[in-house]
Order: sequence, then C-alpha cells, then structure tokens
Amino acid sequence: MARALNNPLAVSLGDPAGIGPEVIAKCWDHRDSFNLPPFVAIGDPRSVAAVWDGPIEVIDDPRQADSAFDYGLPLIQLNALRSDVPGHPSVAGAHTSLDSLEIAVGLARSGSASAVITGPIAKEQLYAIGFQHPGQTEFVAERCGVSPGNVVMMLAGPTLRTVPVTTHLPLKEVASQLNSALIESRGRAALRGLQRNFGIAEPRLAVSGLNPHSGEGGQLGLEELEIIAPAIAVLVAEGWRVTGPHPADTMFHTRARANYDAALCMYHDQALIPIKALHFEDAVNVTLGLPIVRTAPDHGTAFDIAGQDRADPRPMAAAIRMAAENAIQRAESA
Amino acid sequence: MARALNNPLAVSLGDPAGIGPEVIAKCWDHRDSFNLPPFVAIGDPRSVAAVWDGPIEVIDDPRQADSAFDYGLPLIQLNALRSDVPGHPSVAGAHTSLDSLEIAVGLARSGSASAVITGPIAKEQLYAIGFQHPGQTEFVAERCGVSPGNVVMMLAGPTLRTVPVTTHLPLKEVASQLNSALIESRGRAALRGLQRNFGIAEPRLAVSGLNPHSGEGGQLGLEELEIIAPAIAVLVAEGWRVTGPHPADTMFHTRARANYDAALCMYHDQALIPIKALHFEDAVNVTLGLPIVRTAPDHGTAFDIAGQDRADPRPMAAAIRMAAENAIQRAESA
Repeated sequence: MARALNNPLAVSLGDPAGIGPEVIAKCWDHRDSFNLPPFVAIGDPRSVAAVWDGPIEVIDDPRQADSAFDYGLPLIQLNALRSDVPGHPSVAGAHTSLDSLEIAVGLARSGSASAVITGPIAKEQLYAIGFQHPGQTEFVAERCGVSPGNVVMMLAGPTLRTVPVTTHLPLKEVASQLNSALIESRGRAALRGLQRNFGIAEPRLAVSGLNPHSGEGGQLGLEELEIIAPAIAVLVAEGWRVTGPHPADTMFHTRARANYDAALCMYHDQALIPIKALHFEDAVNVTLGLPIVRTAPDHGTAFDIAGQDRADPRPMAAAIRMAAENAIQRAESA
Repeated sequence: MARALNNPLAVSLGDPAGIGPEVIAKCWDHRDSFNLPPFVAIGDPRSVAAVWDGPIEVIDDPRQADSAFDYGLPLIQLNALRSDVPGHPSVAGAHTSLDSLEIAVGLARSGSASAVITGPIAKEQLYAIGFQHPGQTEFVAERCGVSPGNVVMMLAGPTLRTVPVTTHLPLKEVASQLNSALIESRGRAALRGLQRNFGIAEPRLAVSGLNPHSGEGGQLGLEELEIIAPAIAVLVAEGWRVTGPHPADTMFHTRARANYDAALCMYHDQALIPIKALHFEDAVNVTLGLPIVRTAPDHGTAFDIAGQDRADPRPMAAAIRMAAENAIQRAESA
C-alpha cells in the first residue's frame, strides 16, 4: 500500500492472553503480501514475545513507527502489572488491554495516529475492573465525545456491507425495540459513513424487512407497513437513495448486492449471517459516526487457541487495511 | 446423467401465466449441459408454446417419455379451460396449475414417475378456487397420506443444506412457537431425510441458537438453555450425531459448513438468508418425510418477467437433477 498517510495506524493489542498479539505480529510478518501501511502496536511486548519470534521495535513516539516498521513490529510499551500466559486471561491483563485501548484511541484523537484498530478484549475481565461500557465501541464513542446512540456498527467485506439497527437483544425483544426514529437515525449514520469513510457521493441503502417475505403485505407481520416503510419514506424525502423493505432472504445474492452500497438490517443475525457466510476471513467491523476512523476484526479473544500459532491473521489484516483506506478517504475529502 | 431411473420424472408446469412453462422448456433445451435425465411435463401445451419455440412431444403415458425426450419436451396434456397470457394470472390458470400438480403427484405415488418436481404456483389464485392448503408442500403431504406436521422443508445447495423449524410466522411469534418437541421432530425428519434421500448413513446435524451469540450463556435470551439444548440432548440420546446450539452467524462460513450435513435453523430467514446468499441459482426445496421424492425450485411465479424470455432455468434444472439423485438414492437403499 502506498504510504499515503502522514501518520501510522495505532493498533491496540487487546487482551494479552488472547489471540490479539499473535495476529497483529503476523500482520507485520506478512505486511507486504497483506498490503499494509506502517502501524504501531500498543501493549505489553511480553505478550507478543510469548507467541512470536520476530523482531519488536519498542518506540516512544508514533513518529518513529514509519522508519521502525522496516526492521520490526513497532510497539509502544505499556508498563503491564505482570506477564500473562496465552489462553489464561487475568484481571492484570484486563488492565493492560484497557490501557492499550485508551492510548490507541488517544493517539488517533490527537492526530498522532491516522486511525485506530482495536484488538479483541475479554469483556468479563474488564467488567471485573470496573469497565462500564457494553463494548469497546461505546468506550471509543465516549472518549470521542459522541453519544453511543449516534454511532453505528458496520460490517464491511469486499462485496457486502451490513448495518444492524438493533444488536445484542434477545430475538423475542427485537420487534418491540424497533421504531421508525431508530431506523432513520441508523440509516442516516450509515449513509453519512458511506460518504465519509468510503467516498461514495450518493450512497444507496437497501433496508430489510423484519418478517419472512418482508411481511407479505401484512399477512406475516405489520412492522414493515407500520414502522419500516415510514422510516424509509422519511429518508427518501430527505434526498437519500433508500429502498425497501426488501425480503431479507433475497437481498444477499450476487445480483441483489450490486444494487446497494450497504444493507440496513433489523437485527443482529440478519446482518451478521450473510456477511460471515460470504466474508468470514475479511469482514471488518467499522464504527461510523465518530470523529476518528476506528475498525476492528470481527472476532473475539479466542482464548481456546491462543499461544498455539493457529490464529488466522487475515481478519486483523483486513481491519488494518480498511482503516488505512478509510483514513485516506477522509483526508482527501476533508 | 446416466438413465439410471426406470421411470421419468414428473414436472408440473405450475401456473400457466408464470415462468414455470418457460424454465421447464429451457431445461429441455439445455438437458445435456444441465445433465438432466428424461422428464415429462404436465400441463397445458399452449402455455409452453406461448413462451418457447421448441418441439413439444405430447404423450399419453409416462412410459413414452424416455423415447420422446430425444425429440422434444414430453408433455402430458391437460384440457385447460382457456389459454392464459404470460404475466396475467387467472382463475382458469389456477385450475390448470392444480390439475397439473394433482396428476404429477399421482404419477409419482403410483410409481409411473420416479419423483415429482413442482413448478411455481400463485397461491392467491388457488385460494380463489377453494384450495385449502398453505402451499404445495402440504397438498403433496395430504395426497401422500402424511400429516403436514411430519414433513419438513429442506433447502439444499451444493455446499449447504438448511431446515427451518418454524416457517411463515411473524418474527415476534417465533420464540413463543418454539418448543423442544417441535425441534426434536424436525430434527429427526431432517436426519432421516439425509439418510433416505442423500444416502448419508450417519448424518451430522448442526442446530442453531435463536438469539445473538446463541444467547451468550443466558445473557441474551433463555431459549437456548431451556428449549434448544434439551431437544439436542434428546436427539443425541437416541444415537443421532447432533451438535449445538451454535451461534447462527458463525455457522455458515466454508470451514464451519464442513462440520455438518444439514443445519437445523429456528426460523425462516435464519435458514433462507445463508442458503440464498451462497446458492441463489441452485438451491432446491426438498420435501422430506414423504413416501415419494418431491423437489421444487426455490422461486415463485415471477409474473413480472413471465413471457419475456428472461427467466433463469438454473434453479429448475437443479430441482430436476436433485430429484433424480434423490430417487436413485432411495431406489438403491430400498
């Protein structure tokens, strides 16, 4: 990738006992074939050394990352309480992962880093040390001074982007949590994100129905008529290119995907089933609605395989590459 | 395809104003490249002639189909009330499509046909003439003397098979309609179908969760713990190879699909989103639990493109091919 960014990307290592350190180090190994620009890892170098034999270039300042990147994995060192064993998360490791996230976001906020990519964390451990957010996304939003309600999660792969309107809800609560205002606000955030992060001047959004066959004219549910279609009408009246509600089962085949830039889906699995079926190795979680660019691989800490040299670095590479592309896009249109 | 079947396949044309006649005629055109065995269409020859210039071989007896197949599309002629215009369904056409279905099923029941493939019908028109079934599947089940509750719909493509536990329900009713007995009975029907129709001696069934992350240990819903896991335990205790509940979003990527022969899904879109995202052109609807083999292409009448030579015959070809394979499998294991 052309070094079109003025500053490196900041990558938080995530939980030191998870697969974050391993996949980030492997990304440096394969930086040429993965087509990655210079990035700097933030965390405990011992968590990298425990799972990887390559060279680590400890630096103090992100400005050193560009030249260090040719010789080793640039890393800003945290003073971790103790070293963790891969696969065995601890409260000390939670402190390290939170510090890593805090510094990485801070570097992006200050402009010292062009974007932030977050490695996977273990929420249970973080809750044990007083972390109050549902996930890293909400933490990043707060640090950026943005209400969590105004950021949206997009899952982006090479041929499909999806945005869920509702996320971590029991399925039976989805219908009662949907309302037109929520669909409109998620839709606007998705459309603006397609413009800002992806450089699509007139983005096309396809909105799914909630029920089988999109409710079949009211025979299989009324949410399409009462909630979703009115929200689409509002967005269209604002000048956006929005279509739907579409039956969710026929939205995701090759020809259908050519008709839109992102699909707005009503619930978690409606958005995540198609993106992971089609793009499991390179789907990226992109947070839209922030003043900074933030991406993440769409996998967890995978403690069960940590430290065994089995973790696949491709999702992390896709997240780093997309962060770079989004940051370049934003810089060009700024 | 080797002519391993003693009798031809019976294909009902479906609604004469829909795309059924066109895609079935195109299947005869491409019988060699699609690798199709002899089949006989049942319906009004005028509905085929209206959309296709090829030769029609009107026959009286399915035993003539094998030799006629080399010269034209073998067709058992119905005395239709009138000729329909493509794209303009009528009550007369509904009578024709119902007669076509009735005769095709009868031929399969009597053994004169090796299997039945059903063309797409228009339910609204059929309801107008007194059709009482939710769809063709239930009609076929009744004609075979099987309770509709004991047949299941499987969507089968080259690398994925899915079976929905619930089907045409509003999403908000799915959770309340799920129960362990229903999951067990659908699971058993799917497993037996994999044995009988697909010749898999020890089939592996992967059962999805209902909620995001399969409920995350009860944090995002209790159905996995209270309903789905107990049903899986019952099936396992019976000696079946059944796993789950699995998070639905990570069940359908290439590596995950290698671990099972069919996925049992909790609701319509959970089963149909992945199969249509991956196999839109060649997913086949297979009815399991019947004394006969019945398949159908997974599309509707598409009145909006009927008569324009635009309909894609590949789904119908996949349905005919799978019916033949299933019938051969059943004959071999009988």
